[in-house]
Amino acid sequence: MTVYFEDIKLGDSAEFGKTLTEADILMFAAASGDNNPVHLNQEYAEKTPFKTRIAHGMLTASLISTILGTKLPGEGTIYLSQSARFKAPVIIGQTVTARVTVIELDSAKKRVKMKTECLVNGKVVLEGESLVIAPSKI
Amino acid sequence: MTVYFEDIKLGDSAEFGKTLTEADILMFAAASGDNNPVHLNQEYAEKTPFKTRIAHGMLTASLISTILGTKLPGEGTIYLSQSARFKAPVIIGQTVTARVTVIELDSAKKRVKMKTECLVNGKVVLEGESLVIAPSKI
Amino acid sequence: MTVYFEDIKLGDSAEFGKTLTEADILMFAAASGDNNPVHLNQEYAEKTPFKTRIAHGMLTASLISTILGTKLPGEGTIYLSQSARFKAPVIIGQTVTARVTVIELDSAKKRVKMKTECLVNGKVVLEGESLVIAPSKI
Amino acid sequence: MTVYFEDIKLGDSAEFGKTLTEADILMFAAASGDNNPVHLNQEYAEKTPFKTRIAHGMLTASLISTILGTKLPGEGTIYLSQSARFKAPVIIGQTVTARVTVIELDSAKKRVKMKTECLVNGKVVLEGESLVIAPSKI
Repeated sequence: MTVYFEDIKLGDSAEFGKTLTEADILMFAAASGDNNPVHLNQEYAEKTPFKTRIAHGMLTASLISTILGTKLPGEGTIYLSQSARFKAPVIIGQTVTARVTVIELDSAKKRVKMKTECLVNGKVVLEGESLVIAPSKI
Repeated sequence: MTVYFEDIKLGDSAEFGKTLTEADILMFAAASGDNNPVHLNQEYAEKTPFKTRIAHGMLTASLISTILGTKLPGEGTIYLSQSARFKAPVIIGQTVTARVTVIELDSAKKRVKMKTECLVNGKVVLEGESLVIAPSKI
Repeated sequence: MTVYFEDIKLGDSAEFGKTLTEADILMFAAASGDNNPVHLNQEYAEKTPFKTRIAHGMLTASLISTILGTKLPGEGTIYLSQSARFKAPVIIGQTVTARVTVIELDSAKKRVKMKTECLVNGKVVLEGESLVIAPSKI
Repeated sequence: MTVYFEDIKLGDSAEFGKTLTEADILMFAAASGDNNPVHLNQEYAEKTPFKTRIAHGMLTASLISTILGTKLPGEGTIYLSQSARFKAPVIIGQTVTARVTVIELDSAKKRVKMKTECLVNGKVVLEGESLVIAPSKI
């Protein structure tokens, strides 16, 4: 689906949630090449401050781009930039809900700035901003 | 491996390269939930300005975190933030080389700021900055 | 997204297209356990009437359920039945476009019957019918 | 393996069982593009009538084609059609046993009609019919 620039308003928001299972962590590790033992080695992870394996921070961040590319604005969106501050670890098996909220619209360039957050049990684990060009009807 | 904060100098740099194959794109799509047709549907992608399927921008960005967590500083690193500006698309099958370079060191907090770049055939496709806490010997 | 029963009309239709790559075939083989060499062994496949590896017929059929569960009617749909007649093989690397079209509405039971087709280059490779219960506003 | 048409008798039957793990669901989601949250988002799934994540119905159905293509009749089988009625959900982690039983033989066309069932803990979760052309010795 696509929400065109002309139909986007300040405050518009969309969410995408996903449980980050062991299989997700393995596939993300395979695709990214990030085989850090804190994600893949339970014995190692138990000796870290996290006490267990955690999800890759960039996997959590990637849920934001899922919203941008498939929901708001959706297909045809051009991704210009993303910032992400990692506030808390996500334990494997937790469900992350990503949310984007429109905070700025640039009609000349069809640019949309979004506030982005990822939450686990209502707690912010990641926050940042996205900048995209939304598809236009014109 | 781990490079401790005390051994990191301004200008230190590390790289990680990976060919982003169809399998990588599919696994990243699975883990992130991002099934945007520009990544998965060749007929659709041929009608876009890219003319063929492209990799997810956040997959390219994830190669940076691979360096941080496995090479420089490596195991034990705490990831604080990442910014990424997407400068050009990556076609499926291209090889992306990510590179991080130390640009700021904060001894009190053991924080390391990195300039980050991803290149395809020598051309910058992504640029940004990382902030991490490096493991310390002290 | 969800299209509620009350908003569905005869003739409504939705599509989903996907290129069936080697990685898709491997993942489908892993999940289904179907390791038939016609899908996985190029040397074997070259001696069959197909002359090369083909996609699993049920993978092609599965694209239909993707539409039902994510587009029309979308989230909340209850899948009652599916029929599929396999009309032609799909070669690995081809792009399949699945399409569902509403052909019958049962207001009492909120049931929707769909005609379903999968096409490759405009040629029907699979046809059948779906029966679902659509989410209702009432 | 292959059972040739000439060796198939009415009532012949074969089974294939598989535990549908989180990894299976994720791989099936990747290959089919079906990222419906009832399969991938535990928090969402807990609010549905199913109370937890369930397997894709077409993944359960795919176990039938595994039997047809690898056991009875096996390699060389041409899949003509499949029908499936979904009778009950399959929870992630459950073991599904698919079973096919020969109910009709057409010697002129080497066609075999099968009754097909999928069971979880002895309860039918899917039932339907398959029609295939079996490889022939002649």
